[in-house]
Amino acid sequence: MRVLAIDPGYGRCGIAVLEKTARGETLLFSDCIETASKDDFGERLAAVASAVVRALTEHAPDCMALEQLFFAKNQKTAMHVAEVRGALIQIASERDIPVFEYAPAQVKSATTGSGNATKQQVAGMVRHLVRIDKPIKHDDEFDAIALGLTHLASAKVLLAR
Amino acid sequence: MRVLAIDPGYGRCGIAVLEKTARGETLLFSDCIETASKDDFGERLAAVASAVVRALTEHAPDCMALEQLFFAKNQKTAMHVAEVRGALIQIASERDIPVFEYAPAQVKSATTGSGNATKQQVAGMVRHLVRIDKPIKHDDEFDAIALGLTHLASAKVLLAR
Repeated sequence: MRVLAIDPGYGRCGIAVLEKTARGETLLFSDCIETASKDDFGERLAAVASAVVRALTEHAPDCMALEQLFFAKNQKTAMHVAEVRGALIQIASERDIPVFEYAPAQVKSATTGSGNATKQQVAGMVRHLVRIDKPIKHDDEFDAIALGLTHLASAKVLLAR
Repeated sequence: MRVLAIDPGYGRCGIAVLEKTARGETLLFSDCIETASKDDFGERLAAVASAVVRALTEHAPDCMALEQLFFAKNQKTAMHVAEVRGALIQIASERDIPVFEYAPAQVKSATTGSGNATKQQVAGMVRHLVRIDKPIKHDDEFDAIALGLTHLASAKVLLAR
């Protein structure tokens, strides 16, 4: 069972590929895709989409886990993040890759035990739960890894085994 | 110059293909894609996406015109419409079809002369501007035709000739 987990965004988008085997969970890949704020939204969306397509091609996951949108204070930002989500769902759909969605509170709860955990608490637990062999600069990348762990621990995955 | 114009939605999605030649604008195709409210959002998104892919394949437009999102009262609806928009942008992007976006007020202004026109006024002007040989049940289909006419009348099209 291999999942591509994505914390969607167009400024920063965290992505992670995790695998679950009899020996536990392994992080195969993670990155934070960053786009330039001077670029058009269309260019930024295209950059995120092509990085996700590349990760799908290179890592051949069985499914995609996508973080659900919290209701942002800035509605324009929220709309653009929703557009990124739609593009990613379309990319998965064209490749017959099932998409599973999780709310931020579900991810926090699954990784730390509390739906109100801070980003630092999530990052700390992620480091305990899976081996990370590279420096991680942004929370978005931790969030994607946490999302992947949440999916691998979920009932949906247990049922699919 | 041939445009696929889309008034995006997941309950109803208006689509229209219009062509501009030396003799004027012609409506080649229009439809209102409808999905069942009992279906999951994912299924409804997939139904809209596949209808749009079919229209692209059958009518080979040069570009896509997409109506911009107004800020809906219901934020969940607005998010889902934005996800549809993102999926459609991705579909166009993968096929190297440029996407042009117009706000509802631009479409109203271009077709009726007033950015505050009613849906009935837009539909009435659309019937004057282009020949429609079939019954049209929903405003979404008129909106898509109006959007296509707006694009064909825009400076972007004139510059591209």
